[in-house]
Amino acid sequence: MADQAYRVIVVGRGAVGRELLRVMAQRGFPAREIKVLATSAGEIAVDGHTYPVAKAAPEEFDGFDLALFAGTEGEKGAAVTLSPGAIERGAIVIDNGDDFRMDPKVPLVIPEVNPEDVDQHQGMVANPNCSTIQMLVALKPLHDRAGIKRVVVSSYQSCSGAGWNAVAQLDREIEACVKGGEAPLDAFVHPIAGNVIPHIGRFSEAGYASEEEKFVRETRKIFHEPDLPVTATAVRVPTRIGHGEAVNVEFHRALSVEEAREALSQAPGVAVRDDPADNEYPMPLDAAGTDDVFVGRIRKDPTVPHGLNLWVVADNLRKGAALNAVQIAETMIARGLLRLQQRA
Amino acid sequence: MADQAYRVIVVGRGAVGRELLRVMAQRGFPAREIKVLATSAGEIAVDGHTYPVAKAAPEEFDGFDLALFAGTEGEKGAAVTLSPGAIERGAIVIDNGDDFRMDPKVPLVIPEVNPEDVDQHQGMVANPNCSTIQMLVALKPLHDRAGIKRVVVSSYQSCSGAGWNAVAQLDREIEACVKGGEAPLDAFVHPIAGNVIPHIGRFSEAGYASEEEKFVRETRKIFHEPDLPVTATAVRVPTRIGHGEAVNVEFHRALSVEEAREALSQAPGVAVRDDPADNEYPMPLDAAGTDDVFVGRIRKDPTVPHGLNLWVVADNLRKGAALNAVQIAETMIARGLLRLQQRA
Repeated sequence: MADQAYRVIVVGRGAVGRELLRVMAQRGFPAREIKVLATSAGEIAVDGHTYPVAKAAPEEFDGFDLALFAGTEGEKGAAVTLSPGAIERGAIVIDNGDDFRMDPKVPLVIPEVNPEDVDQHQGMVANPNCSTIQMLVALKPLHDRAGIKRVVVSSYQSCSGAGWNAVAQLDREIEACVKGGEAPLDAFVHPIAGNVIPHIGRFSEAGYASEEEKFVRETRKIFHEPDLPVTATAVRVPTRIGHGEAVNVEFHRALSVEEAREALSQAPGVAVRDDPADNEYPMPLDAAGTDDVFVGRIRKDPTVPHGLNLWVVADNLRKGAALNAVQIAETMIARGLLRLQQRA
Repeated sequence: MADQAYRVIVVGRGAVGRELLRVMAQRGFPAREIKVLATSAGEIAVDGHTYPVAKAAPEEFDGFDLALFAGTEGEKGAAVTLSPGAIERGAIVIDNGDDFRMDPKVPLVIPEVNPEDVDQHQGMVANPNCSTIQMLVALKPLHDRAGIKRVVVSSYQSCSGAGWNAVAQLDREIEACVKGGEAPLDAFVHPIAGNVIPHIGRFSEAGYASEEEKFVRETRKIFHEPDLPVTATAVRVPTRIGHGEAVNVEFHRALSVEEAREALSQAPGVAVRDDPADNEYPMPLDAAGTDDVFVGRIRKDPTVPHGLNLWVVADNLRKGAALNAVQIAETMIARGLLRLQQRA
């Protein structure tokens, strides 16, 4: 294996950084060396494997083939400062952050949806936002069959999407609720336990949260439909892992519930969980720690000529972030785009 | 006051029954006697007031002017068995349950929306479902101005909407999460803490939950628009009190965000909370225990000619149930429809 295996850097040791290490180990990703970059050196243990952590600096990328940037929530990612040096040194960068997703030189890729877009890379491929990924994995097989005309999506997003300090805020509030005492705010400006907060990211002049705008612009880029009508409301709910989405879709052509279910059943990365009479539908508690995008509550929306309502859930740290990034790397290997670097 | 005041029966001592007693006391409802009916006799204390509880039986309504039925979640309410006897004895029945809402002989009333419909009563007026009430209080002033063409709503509903045993399930699960141990399921067939469950009520053949169908049919009845296109996804979230709703609305005529905000600011029962840049938007934790329907995140939906997105939150036990029922009674008093009965 060593001769065909890659030297990999993971930038970031937070929720997504740890999940990148976990996913590579679980999938047997062909890495002969994995190094983590963070703000200070040391080591990090995930699932019994220990990885060295170096202080982030451009020369750390010397001789590495692949750099997976975990990205950060709500601030400029390390990719802005570090990716030019990484690419210059010959590494392929896959960035989970938001800084380059809309850059026309950077493909934005979900391997089940637009794998061929990796071919256009110029050193970097961007990983879409968690919410976009799970929605489009579910919508792709339906779009192929009936052509999407308009999407209205409302999200139910878990705290881990805002990082582990957000989960810690939820946990502290829950503990204070049971044991008494104060729970200071941290990742969220309002309490999240027992609450829902219609605020993810920053607000635009038009009143949209950046998370809502990502649904719109990323969907258009990934589907290569620059004017596709998509409108979104993004809401944080007091869950740890797993985003839910109520997706209302209008199609150009007829698509029955049965045809949609059949298409989804055959689609890569999708698991249909749709037997509500038997209390079966996707839920975050079931999706956490798994790889699939779960789709259920598939039903006709009779208020438009060709409409469906869907309920979509996935693990936002795995398919919504780390897993998709590793799958992009696997796609690039399969398409001969990830080459071993010359070594001294 | 005694001479003009009414003898009132509250049927049910659960979450809504208690809230009916609380709301009447807080509003100074003109009652000279309040008696509670339940499955067994005794008494009930709410906010320092103690009310007698009698075992439910038709003759208990003798000489009473008004009967407020709390209704039940997911099963036939006491109104089915007891309301005929109450009406026969001359009491006006206001039912919070679902059994008579779609009965053409029973007005379905939100006092801010269709108060005049009480005039058509034949002894009973029905209180709409909690989720419908808050959505229509918010939509009414917009419908008046621009004419609603289509609504897509996704709900974020609190556990108290399923009764206090549902809140107790949430609390037990949270305690088990902090202290360890098991938390048995009760009101919900899945765990609710740290989860979201896209299942409220029973499922139809078409895959819609009864809660979702209530959005459709109750909106049409209350707006007197029998074909109004409304489609809904109803989801339970781990909150105690206060339902959230992401409402996407398409109008027949132009309606700017500014016009919508102005109309909502002047609308009865509505409180606009819409300064997202200052982290101000409606949230369940703020709405719990209050009377208004809170509306925020008002923004243009550019994917249709005349579209808006709104975020609506209200206390499901108060405006969503008990308060609206008491307001119906007050409306009937104001319109001379609630008359004191002859007394022996």
